[in-house]
Amino acid sequence: MLTVPRDEITARWQGLQAALAAAGLDGALLWQGADLYYYSGVFQQGVLWIPAAGQPVFCVRRSYEEAVRYAQLEQVVPLVSFKKLPDVLRSCGYCPEGGIGLEYDVLPIQYYELLQQLFPHVRWQNISHLIRQQRAVKSTFEQTLIRQAAAALDEAYAVLSQELEPGMTEYQIAARLELLLRQRGHQGVVRLRGLNSEFHYGCVLAGPSGGVASYFDGPLGGCGLNLTYPMGPGRQVWQVSQPLMVDYVACVEGYCVDMSRVFVAGTLPPLLERAHLVALEIAQAIEESVRPGQPAEAAHLLALQMAEQAGLAEYFMGYGSPVGFIGHGVGLELNELPVLARGNKTPLLAGMVIAVEPKFIFPGLGAVGTESTYLLGEIKTEKLTRFSAQLHNIAV
Amino acid sequence: MLTVPRDEITARWQGLQAALAAAGLDGALLWQGADLYYYSGVFQQGVLWIPAAGQPVFCVRRSYEEAVRYAQLEQVVPLVSFKKLPDVLRSCGYCPEGGIGLEYDVLPIQYYELLQQLFPHVRWQNISHLIRQQRAVKSTFEQTLIRQAAAALDEAYAVLSQELEPGMTEYQIAARLELLLRQRGHQGVVRLRGLNSEFHYGCVLAGPSGGVASYFDGPLGGCGLNLTYPMGPGRQVWQVSQPLMVDYVACVEGYCVDMSRVFVAGTLPPLLERAHLVALEIAQAIEESVRPGQPAEAAHLLALQMAEQAGLAEYFMGYGSPVGFIGHGVGLELNELPVLARGNKTPLLAGMVIAVEPKFIFPGLGAVGTESTYLLGEIKTEKLTRFSAQLHNIAV
Repeated sequence: MLTVPRDEITARWQGLQAALAAAGLDGALLWQGADLYYYSGVFQQGVLWIPAAGQPVFCVRRSYEEAVRYAQLEQVVPLVSFKKLPDVLRSCGYCPEGGIGLEYDVLPIQYYELLQQLFPHVRWQNISHLIRQQRAVKSTFEQTLIRQAAAALDEAYAVLSQELEPGMTEYQIAARLELLLRQRGHQGVVRLRGLNSEFHYGCVLAGPSGGVASYFDGPLGGCGLNLTYPMGPGRQVWQVSQPLMVDYVACVEGYCVDMSRVFVAGTLPPLLERAHLVALEIAQAIEESVRPGQPAEAAHLLALQMAEQAGLAEYFMGYGSPVGFIGHGVGLELNELPVLARGNKTPLLAGMVIAVEPKFIFPGLGAVGTESTYLLGEIKTEKLTRFSAQLHNIAV
Repeated sequence: MLTVPRDEITARWQGLQAALAAAGLDGALLWQGADLYYYSGVFQQGVLWIPAAGQPVFCVRRSYEEAVRYAQLEQVVPLVSFKKLPDVLRSCGYCPEGGIGLEYDVLPIQYYELLQQLFPHVRWQNISHLIRQQRAVKSTFEQTLIRQAAAALDEAYAVLSQELEPGMTEYQIAARLELLLRQRGHQGVVRLRGLNSEFHYGCVLAGPSGGVASYFDGPLGGCGLNLTYPMGPGRQVWQVSQPLMVDYVACVEGYCVDMSRVFVAGTLPPLLERAHLVALEIAQAIEESVRPGQPAEAAHLLALQMAEQAGLAEYFMGYGSPVGFIGHGVGLELNELPVLARGNKTPLLAGMVIAVEPKFIFPGLGAVGTESTYLLGEIKTEKLTRFSAQLHNIAV
């Protein structure tokens, strides 16, 4: 198994310690899988105590053996029951008090109530944003893994493009693409942070499906196979002259990369073909202008302006109720920071990995546009997903 | 799209109303995907208000259009922002006050804090158990969908069994089985309730992988492909004389069915072969004895006794730290009620659908045993997963 270097894990929790201290907090209790992995080097069930000063303690319910084997921390201790948390921490020399941070965006109320009982004198505080801000900047080690995921995604799209034929249904295409990705190390699970962020690989949307909105906070939706999970590939048959929008995620060694490409057999309606070219121009303009120090909203403002100038604003990023962003960070989760969104003045930082996705949605006709994942460097922005973003013509 | 009959949706929310009234509550605010689907007929982002008396109101953030189209409720209203919830409910004639139920097991703290601000006079209460108890008993309509999922799972295992060869890796086998399931309508996402219950289809565990415990609260674990998701199929190569434990879930039209079967090329070590037979005897004994009215612990007590009598208690349901149950309900989520666990005196009810999974775990050697999904009828217990539970010999 690939393990995160211990120095890197140490730097991560020390980074959080600095943020905790700056926020006037005495420590953090972390429960969520992606966060546990990020700060310990392994995901197992348990609670990770990160004091503002001193060594972290990973209190592990199960599997303790696997956590001991892989966690890059000095202190990994068994936790028979979550109720024993105060005792276990005390035995390690810690008694959480004062201000303690929790992941308010994901931790269910029942855990909160338990913690309030176990640590009655603690003042709880939300630190999800501190964690997410730290995780938004990827280390060299993480960048290497993200490149692997991008390569897997490029390969899978290239193979798929040789196999596509009109007459296939969305879910047949999806099944094939998922197989290609799984054979290239896709872990299956794609993590999204937050309640109800259920997600399975991505969207394959043929023609009108591209115009169907969903519960999902993205420009694409689709019908899905049923009303319990009404999103993504469904039973629509892909027909000649319809755009086939493929928006899929590779998740290799834990890291997500996001890419959308459009295929057509025959020719697209002229309006859609033009919109696709405008989307490529927007993506290109963002790639050339985005840089560290820039406010996160800049790319979105630029995109909105270009869509407006092209006379296509009404279709941009959703029809009727467009989503309020043009890009999002990717990493251990698909919905990481930064969010490239109007109103977000937070400066971008070198090392951020961002999926930029200008798309146009035409009700009844489908979705066109592009999505590529970029690494924001000090000097230049690197496009990690290299499979061509041009419209792909499939022989009929 | 298959829709739930409106009469059935009405009966569901009326059932919850009765439970709310019996608990002295004035209503419930539901946010979680599976619950929204169960009580409205469609999953979209929003909040479902179910008053103890009167019509429910589904307040939908997105997609409102899709919710209106498919929800089997009289009142579906748009919700621009969660902060507008009091205004929207007021416009429908409701002002939640008194005791209001929430899903404490899944609702993150940040929503709880928002609700406390929006409705300062409400007394909040956990009603997760009321919802889960109601959902544990499946209607005839649900049973039909569950039978479809079982048939898809049976078919996929039958095809897979013709394709297995020693020398395949776990994840190659997994990729193939996932394709077979996806082609048979598997929706991709398998829902588990609760924090960190990440899950992708199931486990394919070759030889020693069957002895590796994980974060997952089940008798099987495995290594997975990486340390961010260290569970399920990994890179282990399946070799002659090793058990190949395949524990997979079909999820069709939202409903899960769970089945485990064991394959071997050549012959198993005698201890494992005997343990597999004992597991089949335990499953058979449970199938013959389980019935409505029986306490949920009875099946587990019987299983523990039989494992003890066979001299195999030490390997039963995990080595070292066995899980504390022999079976679990399945439905819209994989971890539904009832839990067949020592100490659980709750009586079983007709209409429950339960996966029973007697398994033996031998560190270094692997896992054997079985899992089948059963429908508990008034008169008889019906085994829904019909692919043979005998040890499957694969020609070398």
